[in-house]
Amino acid sequence: MTDSVKALVFDVFGTVVDWRSSIIADLEAFGGAKNLKADWVGLTDAWRAGYQPAMDRVRKGELGWTHIDVLHRMVLDKLLVEFKVEGLSEADKDHVNRVWHRLKGWPDTVEGLTRLKRKFIISTLSNGNTSLLVNMAKYAGLPWDCVLSAETFKAYKPDPKAYLGAAEVLGLKPAEVMMVAAHNSDLVAASKQGLRTAFVARPGEYGPRQTKDLKAEHKFDVVATSFVDLAAQVGA
Amino acid sequence: MTDSVKALVFDVFGTVVDWRSSIIADLEAFGGAKNLKADWVGLTDAWRAGYQPAMDRVRKGELGWTHIDVLHRMVLDKLLVEFKVEGLSEADKDHVNRVWHRLKGWPDTVEGLTRLKRKFIISTLSNGNTSLLVNMAKYAGLPWDCVLSAETFKAYKPDPKAYLGAAEVLGLKPAEVMMVAAHNSDLVAASKQGLRTAFVARPGEYGPRQTKDLKAEHKFDVVATSFVDLAAQVGA
Repeated sequence: MTDSVKALVFDVFGTVVDWRSSIIADLEAFGGAKNLKADWVGLTDAWRAGYQPAMDRVRKGELGWTHIDVLHRMVLDKLLVEFKVEGLSEADKDHVNRVWHRLKGWPDTVEGLTRLKRKFIISTLSNGNTSLLVNMAKYAGLPWDCVLSAETFKAYKPDPKAYLGAAEVLGLKPAEVMMVAAHNSDLVAASKQGLRTAFVARPGEYGPRQTKDLKAEHKFDVVATSFVDLAAQVGA
Repeated sequence: MTDSVKALVFDVFGTVVDWRSSIIADLEAFGGAKNLKADWVGLTDAWRAGYQPAMDRVRKGELGWTHIDVLHRMVLDKLLVEFKVEGLSEADKDHVNRVWHRLKGWPDTVEGLTRLKRKFIISTLSNGNTSLLVNMAKYAGLPWDCVLSAETFKAYKPDPKAYLGAAEVLGLKPAEVMMVAAHNSDLVAASKQGLRTAFVARPGEYGPRQTKDLKAEHKFDVVATSFVDLAAQVGA
């Protein structure tokens, strides 16, 4: 089933990096340095909760193509008011917004990617914008062969253009590309376009109260507990 | 002048890889294995000579967007007749065409890029298509942070869209990006869009009879003899 796979393309937020712990730690340190108290955990969760609705505005055509740094900032500006975080300069706000460029991998991420890279082309296929993904790779030591983004195709997953575009620019048939994600819906959408699928559970992504994506809910080609387990299962 | 530079973007054919020696060696080995005799040196030079005219057809709108693998194949099919290379199967022709994915770096390439990557984002900015560049990076061990291609922007250099598009997707101002090339014309075009420029001489690119691009003919920000020299000059 996976013998024909030549490239693995990865969802990033949650699948490759632990955005929640990374952002909470970064904002708590920022708040400490600025002597600002706030509910950073609540702000982080609310920020992420605003992510899909913001992309929906682009998906529905309410907004023209708008990349994630800009969408994150739109959501952040509202949340700074709601969470009563006051006195930030424009430079501060930009620094906070770019926390999404400073996310750390899960403990197995770098080891797993490094093994997978020996056998496969490994690329991002994320709704994050290219510069976010490139800066994150430098920060977290992610050894991508290629950085593909919704921005590359001007289409947010689960738009078929993103999955088919990735296969096309890699010069591969959809069945030669495996989507790796911690989210059932991303893999179902990839599968509909003919890509292979690998589910890697990240039950801590949304913190202790996570209720969804705790396990694979469909028949995916591979179901793994970590990137190292994924590498072992695909012979890398 | 170069203190504000955050990313280096590289022309690839000739600047990063020695296409001529790589292709001649590959085709001679292929011919040997197939017991085919031909003027492989002449075919290689004619193939490269057909590259700009083929892109010109796209630049002028005679052809819709067509990437380099397809343009290379169009030129190759004519040259196989002209050079009387007969009896190739479709798989053989595809293998020959993909020789452009199997090019080797100059002796200083990997060491120089590895040093530069410590201080800067390093990306391709090539007229080669994405899959060609990704496969070449695997083959030649090129440690790119990002693979940007004319295909990303649907515009062949020296179209301003390619240079400005690279800065935009990297989230940088043009002056924060330095174009690295062995070709004066590429750097002049990059400079017109506000990018910084580094000329690295590759006087052997076109073989012993090379007549152009033997040296920097304009005032570029850096003029270097190799990628290792470039790294030293920019403090990487």
